[in-house]
Amino acid sequence: MTEAGVGESGGNAENGGTGDNGPWYLAPVAELNHEMEALARARQDSLTKPKGALGRLEEVAISLAGMQGRIDPRVKAPMVVVFAGDHGVVKEGVSLYPQSVTAEMLRNFSRGTAAITVLARSMRCPFQVVNVGTVEPVEELPNVVDKRIAAGAANVCREEAMTLEQFEKVMAVGKAVIDAAPEDTDCFIGGEMGIGNSTIAAALAVAHTGLAANAMVGPGTGVDKQGVAKKVATVTRIVGKHLPHIQRGAYALQRIGGFELSALAAAYIRAAQKGIPSLVDGYIATAAAVSAMQVNPGVRDWLFFSHCSAEPGHRKLLAKLDAEPLLDLDLALGEGSGAALALPMLKAACNLHNHMATFEEAGVSQALS
Amino acid sequence: MTEAGVGESGGNAENGGTGDNGPWYLAPVAELNHEMEALARARQDSLTKPKGALGRLEEVAISLAGMQGRIDPRVKAPMVVVFAGDHGVVKEGVSLYPQSVTAEMLRNFSRGTAAITVLARSMRCPFQVVNVGTVEPVEELPNVVDKRIAAGAANVCREEAMTLEQFEKVMAVGKAVIDAAPEDTDCFIGGEMGIGNSTIAAALAVAHTGLAANAMVGPGTGVDKQGVAKKVATVTRIVGKHLPHIQRGAYALQRIGGFELSALAAAYIRAAQKGIPSLVDGYIATAAAVSAMQVNPGVRDWLFFSHCSAEPGHRKLLAKLDAEPLLDLDLALGEGSGAALALPMLKAACNLHNHMATFEEAGVSQALS
Repeated sequence: MTEAGVGESGGNAENGGTGDNGPWYLAPVAELNHEMEALARARQDSLTKPKGALGRLEEVAISLAGMQGRIDPRVKAPMVVVFAGDHGVVKEGVSLYPQSVTAEMLRNFSRGTAAITVLARSMRCPFQVVNVGTVEPVEELPNVVDKRIAAGAANVCREEAMTLEQFEKVMAVGKAVIDAAPEDTDCFIGGEMGIGNSTIAAALAVAHTGLAANAMVGPGTGVDKQGVAKKVATVTRIVGKHLPHIQRGAYALQRIGGFELSALAAAYIRAAQKGIPSLVDGYIATAAAVSAMQVNPGVRDWLFFSHCSAEPGHRKLLAKLDAEPLLDLDLALGEGSGAALALPMLKAACNLHNHMATFEEAGVSQALS
Repeated sequence: MTEAGVGESGGNAENGGTGDNGPWYLAPVAELNHEMEALARARQDSLTKPKGALGRLEEVAISLAGMQGRIDPRVKAPMVVVFAGDHGVVKEGVSLYPQSVTAEMLRNFSRGTAAITVLARSMRCPFQVVNVGTVEPVEELPNVVDKRIAAGAANVCREEAMTLEQFEKVMAVGKAVIDAAPEDTDCFIGGEMGIGNSTIAAALAVAHTGLAANAMVGPGTGVDKQGVAKKVATVTRIVGKHLPHIQRGAYALQRIGGFELSALAAAYIRAAQKGIPSLVDGYIATAAAVSAMQVNPGVRDWLFFSHCSAEPGHRKLLAKLDAEPLLDLDLALGEGSGAALALPMLKAACNLHNHMATFEEAGVSQALS
């Protein structure tokens, strides 16, 4: 390669780079406080319950203590951001829904009547949508920020999803969303909306993990067996075309991932750099998270996986990541909805960790040994 | 049998009976509104999401609509009640904890520093503990109601857990708790506290389902392999002694279940009669629920199973009931804690069902066919 590629251009003020050390997204993530993790673990073992009886919630509280560097971790100021963009791959007939739905859903989000907005409102989470690339411009809408970079990603069966310049721009949008978050933000919930993006997610998963295309492709929004077969063939073509050129993680997002999944990956990376844990949503968000980890492996430490979706590839992808999701409710919606549903589990884990009495405080007898 | 047995004494005002038709707990449960279920299902299919994309939460909303007879189901006024009692079976050495812990935990509940009280407070649920049979009397405590019937259940390896008279009394306590609930109560969360009651729960499960003792026994609060073997032998003895005398469901509670599990079963039954759904907690609560279903099979329709616990028998017991729990977080605490953790899922299911827009309302294009 003679031309400057992704991650080789160096950082500059415009794209939010880190100066001499290359683009911003390669900068290290925040460090975990392992000493605080150990203290939190000791506290869990002293609380008035049999050891380990709070199961996964104990791990959550201990992890949050290590992330936040405090013995009394908290999730009190979460933020929900949905990135939206279109995909040229829909021309291959991989989705049941017309591409116009991406923009129509922006209006539904804006009115507060889509699933994620109902959940965010009921959980009192600030919410915004960031349009990074619908095919058509969308009129000004409350809670929708217009950061549209192009009229959708290109058809990745034939060309790269976006140019290198567009890639740096969309990554900077994801970064800026996190940088603009209130100081006390303690949990990032990212969602995605983009007709066709379950095909793109499968292609990213295959490219990054080597899992088989037919294991990673599912019905998405509801295609039948024939539709799934078409998606498998499409994913195989996409990966075949681009994989030889993906020498580093960022290329997968630029060549395949498209705008909303790149912005979401960027947000995961920036949140990890700023020490904000992310609650990863379903299959598509997990594919963005895997992409973020390929760009910057330290991101893994800052992710909670919220749920295992009904999309059959999700369980396999999570297993490959050694990730144990908190919920398993056969959800298949995206938008960040499954992550929002897991938020009460993080809050409960903190409340239990912080407010239960120890055996000593409560004067309760311990187990006989 | 010549003596009047459980369920044969007829009802009277004192034990809350239904007059001519036998004891109150045999009276039919409230009817589900299947027409409303169908309307709710149609609404789910019209909401702005792919069909079925809210997974288990769709079923929850549809079930609640059928239970409440309203197209906009709600869970806004839950109540949490923990029944506490002791078990003579601890004399067999089946628990790691001394029996004094049951009473000590009442004080911990009362101070609001036990797991279930932390959760109930953070979810703004009214909470009370009902002491139906600790071995020692407990001083007056805030939020703890003293309905102590005896100094713990008898050692069921040797005798019946309680007399028939005590059984009617404790069932009446469970009923009275539900009858005293505020008019608008829309979800009952029952918990249990009683050192030794995982052994009793296993014996109830084996007696009711025919599952093997070694499949139903687990570490409980943390006994080792040898301890588990001792519990299996104990459960086998209990079931061997009592099963031949359990001609109807109620006998299992009276002969084996003891005070807090009988009261909990009674509360499930009464809630179902009054049209209040219950969120069943973990393994021990599930054993009480199975017992309630054996007494009055209609109860099954009014139960949500909140989670699958780490106690290995729970998954098998749930499978036997064809029950799909909402959460699976390796919890093993009881007290109603897992049920309280599932409460946000019921609330979210209602919020999504009631507040999402339909495709028509939102002007979103439907799937192409």
